Amino acid sequence: MRMSNGVEWAAHCCLLLDWLGPDAVVPSAKLAAAFELPAPYLHKHLQPLVHAGILRSVRGVHGGFMLDRPLERISLLDVVRSIEGDDGAFRCTEIRRCGLGANADRAAWQRPCEIAASMYRAEQAWNAALATRSLADIRDDTETNVPGVAAQTRAAFAAL
Amino acid sequence: MRMSNGVEWAAHCCLLLDWLGPDAVVPSAKLAAAFELPAPYLHKHLQPLVHAGILRSVRGVHGGFMLDRPLERISLLDVVRSIEGDDGAFRCTEIRRCGLGANADRAAWQRPCEIAASMYRAEQAWNAALATRSLADIRDDTETNVPGVAAQTRAAFAAL
Repeated sequence: MRMSNGVEWAAHCCLLLDWLGPDAVVPSAKLAAAFELPAPYLHKHLQPLVHAGILRSVRGVHGGFMLDRPLERISLLDVVRSIEGDDGAFRCTEIRRCGLGANADRAAWQRPCEIAASMYRAEQAWNAALATRSLADIRDDTETNVPGVAAQTRAAFAAL
Repeated sequence: MRMSNGVEWAAHCCLLLDWLGPDAVVPSAKLAAAFELPAPYLHKHLQPLVHAGILRSVRGVHGGFMLDRPLERISLLDVVRSIEGDDGAFRCTEIRRCGLGANADRAAWQRPCEIAASMYRAEQAWNAALATRSLADIRDDTETNVPGVAAQTRAAFAAL
């Protein structure tokens, strides 16, 4: 079970757009060049972020992608869900009702299957950890770990 | 990002084997019939559980799969990892070092990327929840939710 690379790509693009300034509009081809990513795939991965209200798509000669809300209001869960969807990793297909269970009293299945319930609770712990971590937290910790990263990124982007 | 159906199938098969008794040996075709699953796919999904020491494969005319250790010593994480592997959902490809980052001071990358570190911490919360839930916990809660489930399962299996 592997998450799409799009999650990593999208999170880095959001951080870059923030470092370039709140009004920066960057075409996906230039975002791709900034990280040496394949431009068509990156473009495809950024489109659901527009749908999720994380990015805005600006048309025209100077068009591209820009942040649609501040990083403080974008959680890692927002990014993951915009790319991966809301369905979660585990899917219960209720096999307890098949075969041996086919003739059981239907009351037996009123409570959710304990296997599924346990899997969902574990996913909730994952989602809660993702929901409480904003891209602003990640930006701030990155700026602490890598002093000068914002200015260096702007300078390298200007030279791209 | 979807987990393999094999996780659901394997967990149900372990519970069934436990209800049939500690020495029950059941061919994969019969386990498949017990849940109306496709026998070749189920067989393929149960083999990594043998490798993980969760099930044992018994050869011969009366061969099949049996539990290799009690449900108390099988966590949901054991089942998930045996099917899905140990790699985790998020993979960092270090795109921060590419493009804009290619000429940065290498000291900048001494600390792990904060995006990856945050994703890994969230997965640890997920894994911790899976690790603390044993198949014995799930069996016990199922027996509370569905009184008589063990005896009903044995009777239905005998009539299969």
